[in-house]
Amino acid sequence: MAAANGPSPGRLASFYSEVQTSRLHHALQLPTIMCSQFSLVDGPPSSATGNPDEIAKLFPNLFGQPSAALVPAKESVEGKPLKVGVVLSGGQAPGGHNNRAKGSTMYGFKGGPAGVMKCKYVELNTDFVYPYRNQGGFDMICSGRDKIETPEQFKQAEDTANKLELDGLVVIGGDDSNTNACLIAEYFRSKNLKTRVIGCPKTIDGDLKCKEVPTSFGFDTACKIYSEMIGNVMTDARSSGKYYHFVRLMGRAASHITLECALQTHPNIALIGEEVAAKKQTLKNVTDYITDVICKRAKLGYNYGVILIPEGLIDFIPEVQKLIAELNEILAHDTVDEAGVWKNKLEPESKKLFEFLPLAIQEQLLLERDPHGNVQVAKIETEKMLIAMVETELEKRKAEGKYKGNFIGQSHFFGYEGRCGLPTNFDASYCYALGYGAGALLQSGKTGLISSVGNLAAPVAEWTVGGTALTSLMDVERRHGKFKPVIKKAMVELDGAPFKKFASLRDEWAVKNRYISPGPIQFIGSGADAVNHTLLLELGVQA
Amino acid sequence: MAAANGPSPGRLASFYSEVQTSRLHHALQLPTIMCSQFSLVDGPPSSATGNPDEIAKLFPNLFGQPSAALVPAKESVEGKPLKVGVVLSGGQAPGGHNNRAKGSTMYGFKGGPAGVMKCKYVELNTDFVYPYRNQGGFDMICSGRDKIETPEQFKQAEDTANKLELDGLVVIGGDDSNTNACLIAEYFRSKNLKTRVIGCPKTIDGDLKCKEVPTSFGFDTACKIYSEMIGNVMTDARSSGKYYHFVRLMGRAASHITLECALQTHPNIALIGEEVAAKKQTLKNVTDYITDVICKRAKLGYNYGVILIPEGLIDFIPEVQKLIAELNEILAHDTVDEAGVWKNKLEPESKKLFEFLPLAIQEQLLLERDPHGNVQVAKIETEKMLIAMVETELEKRKAEGKYKGNFIGQSHFFGYEGRCGLPTNFDASYCYALGYGAGALLQSGKTGLISSVGNLAAPVAEWTVGGTALTSLMDVERRHGKFKPVIKKAMVELDGAPFKKFASLRDEWAVKNRYISPGPIQFIGSGADAVNHTLLLELGVQA
Repeated sequence: MAAANGPSPGRLASFYSEVQTSRLHHALQLPTIMCSQFSLVDGPPSSATGNPDEIAKLFPNLFGQPSAALVPAKESVEGKPLKVGVVLSGGQAPGGHNNRAKGSTMYGFKGGPAGVMKCKYVELNTDFVYPYRNQGGFDMICSGRDKIETPEQFKQAEDTANKLELDGLVVIGGDDSNTNACLIAEYFRSKNLKTRVIGCPKTIDGDLKCKEVPTSFGFDTACKIYSEMIGNVMTDARSSGKYYHFVRLMGRAASHITLECALQTHPNIALIGEEVAAKKQTLKNVTDYITDVICKRAKLGYNYGVILIPEGLIDFIPEVQKLIAELNEILAHDTVDEAGVWKNKLEPESKKLFEFLPLAIQEQLLLERDPHGNVQVAKIETEKMLIAMVETELEKRKAEGKYKGNFIGQSHFFGYEGRCGLPTNFDASYCYALGYGAGALLQSGKTGLISSVGNLAAPVAEWTVGGTALTSLMDVERRHGKFKPVIKKAMVELDGAPFKKFASLRDEWAVKNRYISPGPIQFIGSGADAVNHTLLLELGVQA
Repeated sequence: MAAANGPSPGRLASFYSEVQTSRLHHALQLPTIMCSQFSLVDGPPSSATGNPDEIAKLFPNLFGQPSAALVPAKESVEGKPLKVGVVLSGGQAPGGHNNRAKGSTMYGFKGGPAGVMKCKYVELNTDFVYPYRNQGGFDMICSGRDKIETPEQFKQAEDTANKLELDGLVVIGGDDSNTNACLIAEYFRSKNLKTRVIGCPKTIDGDLKCKEVPTSFGFDTACKIYSEMIGNVMTDARSSGKYYHFVRLMGRAASHITLECALQTHPNIALIGEEVAAKKQTLKNVTDYITDVICKRAKLGYNYGVILIPEGLIDFIPEVQKLIAELNEILAHDTVDEAGVWKNKLEPESKKLFEFLPLAIQEQLLLERDPHGNVQVAKIETEKMLIAMVETELEKRKAEGKYKGNFIGQSHFFGYEGRCGLPTNFDASYCYALGYGAGALLQSGKTGLISSVGNLAAPVAEWTVGGTALTSLMDVERRHGKFKPVIKKAMVELDGAPFKKFASLRDEWAVKNRYISPGPIQFIGSGADAVNHTLLLELGVQA
């Protein structure tokens, strides 16, 4: 009896800060459509983002499903009590605690998909859920990174669904988790289970989005927390007049967080991985770009600045990828000799790049290996690496008489601080609507949809609610000779409104100091309901 | 004509965020005593904190001055227009922009005390000051770390005072800067200058305080910003269940920031440097203490936690000081051989300690030297050092079968993010009162006092305002055979209320999860006016 394991280490609202308590009591608004009688209207049949034929083969029961939208109705969908399981999948994002099911029984699977497979759960009754309302974190039931993949694992999920007589399973996660949700939906349907599966878009990285799902929850809060910190170091840079703050920001695959923070704060430089990749830039190009700005600023008398760097920057640089692949090969088979003869096994351009890297980074590449013996790119402190490379380049230019300034780099990494903050009003309301929407979809017997809340630039009352066929978001990738369904990560689009706005302003930001300090997230008063720039620009609201 | 240099790179309120703008318009309350007619009442003659005879010799014109307090009066001090110079000295602290002088002319010396010596200033008229109201940072006139020390420098300051016909000079800074303010006051008095000098207590470190000056501005804001971040990583720790977050916090000399953040957030461990020093703990003791808690928690099923570390921790460990002194000596005279023979020049216990240190720290100690060739203790990433040492100890215990958990350390340094945040309501009001108070003291012809605002646990209206003789805060230190006046840094008192409260609760916090997430600083609503724990406890308000 997993439920008898007792409550998790748990929160005690009696230990809450004043702000936590006030958030606990903060009343959330629902979209008007959900406040009175509504029914569900299906759209036209759907296809897939790419390779519809392959997707159709992978999802014979679900492919082509229409999306669904809530519309006002004279009589409402009969609200029968449901049994619904909820699972959090992947990294934390603020807002994940805002789910509810009126009149229904809710089970929270503990520790992510593993909880589904092992049938480890806790009943999410009103008392249990209460302390988590509008709070950050995923600690109510915790998350996990397991996937339900093998036939045995699908069978385990089926057993759990049957044992708990689940009418529905709500999977809250990013692109991978929602792909997995769709596979489970397909499997349950193929087995004629009554259990429907609905996904919810969650990731601070902001890389699960499309027309129908304009954003993922957590992105708004995380970016605002990082932007608060960036605004503070900007003020510090301007006050002390002697530091270049190199700020690395979470977000490995896509650079949405860096772009949003740039739009919020106007740094002197923000590197966007997608642009670096599109322009096939080298590490030397990136270093030169930063150094050029620093030199220009020095001439204006500014020996300080703020530079934003996406966590995944070096993943976007082709030559670095090549070097790492070669290193993995060499390190797997050869020993690294002190004298450095091993380096001759690198291709000439990789050898050149390796020697261009700061010593500390060279050592990190050689020493820090994951359990498979591979170089751990994630462990590379890109911001420190860039500081060292910029220093070297500036010394060179100083010797050549081209630079007369002073340079002190300060490194920062903003990551964990943002994943679990108290959700903004936007994220709190958005999650609430997503959760309610998932419940409405389940009530109507829908499966394989992702809860979709739209019209997000408008006040909450005017938001639209519905579900989008998960198969319509999919494409396939070939892995180990087989087609695998994937929801492709939404990357920063270089012809999208957010990047274009940034690109049109960055030269001004580079040399003039247009810093904006967003300050701490406010829950009441001016600015408390502001929506993030990326979303507004993508929705065409800001020019 | 320094004033003709034009505005500083400067702020444009048109670029402000919504929160910055709302703070710009935020009306500040003044203590009631300042809102109507008041006069200044002198207290009894003062002495010094230590060695009054020496202080009397060093300050023949000022020693023994009474403190002064504002009291209601039928007729007010005649408010004649004054010419007042203001200078910011030392590191940034939120609130420093909140100064004003009604009807007077104010000059802001640029870049700290150097601006006084070089007579570089800007006139702080209403338009110029406007965008800085209630904003963080010191960028209005910037700060600097110079001191006015030599006879030539005092003469330069005198020339500036004469040139600008200054009635007063307000020095905003920490212990050193206020000591310097008193020396300038003494010098100006000895020269019969009309220029009076008043100090204001500024430091995020919280180590300039005494009975009459219960806190320094900036401490409240900085601690609340750090506590927001700590609260977030706590939620992250509890959600992911797999990380130990080691958080190093700014504050080199005293551990007030760490203590306040501990009281705000209830971490599993908070190291207080003053306690480590008092107990003469070794680095091994500290490592064992942390490791013991981690092992206890592992038995309870918690493989996660949050540990706070004051920036200056290792400065408090006698054996580390000894090692560093020996290293400085050896490195100045000898070369360091690869084989490590040089280590035999260390005393046996220092050699043992050196070899106990993680490799990366050993290298840092040998390689990173300041311009004088000394080891840069400030550059040591104590949090990473402790993670490495704890890892080693845990591996040992695992091998002995005494520990079965998993450990992943995540390091953080929260520093620059906190120095320049938007000041809390408390800091904004406190600075406003301090500045107004300084003006009132100057109006009354006072010099060599530090602006003192009291009764801070009460609402702003009830705050008291006055000035405390700077000489009364002083003691002497012997340097190069001479007595030098110093305002001793206020360290964490192990028998003070804040530490005692922490000490009475930390064992519970260690094993139970009593985390509190203060959330982002709010400017309106619940909690917006909360005063920090340290101050409340020191004032005896919280039991």
